[in-house]
Amino acid sequence: MDLTILGCHSATPRNDSHTTSQLLEIKNHLFLIDCGEGTQMQLRKARVKFFRIQHIFISHLHGDHFYGLIGLISTFRLLGRENDLHVYGPTGIKELITLQLKYANSWTNYKLFFHELSAQVSECVFEDENVRVTTLPLDHRVYTNGFLFEEKPGPRRINKSAIAGLELPVAALKGLKKGQDYVTEAGEVIPNHQLTLDPIKPKRYAFCSDTAYYEPLVPFIEGVDILYHEATFLAQHEALAAKTKHSTAQQAASIAQQAKVETLILGHFSTRYNNDQLFQKEAQPIFENTLIAEAGKTYHFR
Amino acid sequence: MDLTILGCHSATPRNDSHTTSQLLEIKNHLFLIDCGEGTQMQLRKARVKFFRIQHIFISHLHGDHFYGLIGLISTFRLLGRENDLHVYGPTGIKELITLQLKYANSWTNYKLFFHELSAQVSECVFEDENVRVTTLPLDHRVYTNGFLFEEKPGPRRINKSAIAGLELPVAALKGLKKGQDYVTEAGEVIPNHQLTLDPIKPKRYAFCSDTAYYEPLVPFIEGVDILYHEATFLAQHEALAAKTKHSTAQQAASIAQQAKVETLILGHFSTRYNNDQLFQKEAQPIFENTLIAEAGKTYHFR
Repeated sequence: MDLTILGCHSATPRNDSHTTSQLLEIKNHLFLIDCGEGTQMQLRKARVKFFRIQHIFISHLHGDHFYGLIGLISTFRLLGRENDLHVYGPTGIKELITLQLKYANSWTNYKLFFHELSAQVSECVFEDENVRVTTLPLDHRVYTNGFLFEEKPGPRRINKSAIAGLELPVAALKGLKKGQDYVTEAGEVIPNHQLTLDPIKPKRYAFCSDTAYYEPLVPFIEGVDILYHEATFLAQHEALAAKTKHSTAQQAASIAQQAKVETLILGHFSTRYNNDQLFQKEAQPIFENTLIAEAGKTYHFR
Repeated sequence: MDLTILGCHSATPRNDSHTTSQLLEIKNHLFLIDCGEGTQMQLRKARVKFFRIQHIFISHLHGDHFYGLIGLISTFRLLGRENDLHVYGPTGIKELITLQLKYANSWTNYKLFFHELSAQVSECVFEDENVRVTTLPLDHRVYTNGFLFEEKPGPRRINKSAIAGLELPVAALKGLKKGQDYVTEAGEVIPNHQLTLDPIKPKRYAFCSDTAYYEPLVPFIEGVDILYHEATFLAQHEALAAKTKHSTAQQAASIAQQAKVETLILGHFSTRYNNDQLFQKEAQPIFENTLIAEAGKTYHFR
């Protein structure tokens, strides 16, 4: 599971700071999360194969989170895309995109599915045998969801040193991976746990932007491997954060600390500050394992 | 009169090629022509003072000519703009922009005026004492206008060596600039042309993109100082140009030659070719004074 930050600044895109967009590689899926203006250029910089993106999750309908979506959808068409594309976002996103396609008289030649969201409670929006994605309702000026991306547990792992010399048939190996005990030809039962190791711990990633300080979020993100939480402002602008329904670095750190997450990544920085390290400095006294998002950087889940 | 190219490639923005946008500085106006995705970043690169832009002209509603408009309008708001903004473009542009502002719940705090165009014949869309802007209907897959930007003639210029020794009063100088004759105290009439020079020749700029080869355009752009004409394709793709209602470099050169313009600038290059100089090479045998548009470059009208 790898997370690549394409943009992590708020409000207006500049040449040295890009608005929100991220790529999450999880169990062979390449999920795009938010899509600010210029995201397609950032995807090219990151040398991403465009057609691998089949699911796009949009948190809310503020421009710095989705103005790049119509351009990306158009580019997919121009590049001859054939595979389906699914877009998950607030109600209205279908009308916004289709109206632009209508006036351009340029319908996509691939299937474009909109999954419009309006629930005020967490709901599952995508699920297959390996992955589940659920919404995380946030507290912002317009209807906004974060997203929780979870791997499902994989098979039990064969303990190679434990099975050495047993000469197990393939069917038995498959059974062991599913958690079954092994029965020898002589009828002896060897319990599963003697021959296998626990599955690799499934990874969980929570994307939470944009939001005010919002404690009801905590139980939904407890213990996640990585929490990306917006930190638009420093403590000196706490009142402004409250007024605009954004968070400070300290508030993001407090959420991370209460939810006992492994790692906190801060992002959505206001461009009024010229040193992103200040966010880390304010957060670390509250939550030590705090990182600063950086456009172009990939974070590997351990 | 200065023309700055912000982007001059077609279809999809890349890191090294930007979609259509231009800035025309004319008689203290700063006109923005088209606004592909990422135009606001290109404006920052060019160190343009954003609030000087009060008029934006959109040729047509294909994404590579206007997907950057909503972002620019939003950024103006975030930067605290107070002065009016006028947008000229095809019918539909108001609905497209206001729908996005509505879902973002982010109305502008400056006055935003839409001038929607639907005429099939050339019409004046902006005029003041110094400048006139008229549409140039083009032949493309959707309703499209080019734009003709014309300076109005300035005052006659005082011929300093001719008036030496005459000790003219201020009122007489004003009259001479307006074309009046000068009457001495003794009643002698000195004809205006003996004391003045012709006004500086007014400059004219024609922006023509996107369009198929379209001869009816010729009389409207006759003798302009600079013609910017799209040249999406090279001659080898002439059939594709016809099918998609674009032009080849040779076709653009032919229009320039028939209209007897001073200078032709080619742009809107397809990114399928990796050498923009090929467009110049194909055009020059037909129209010698052909230049190649280059993002970030400013062309001065002589």
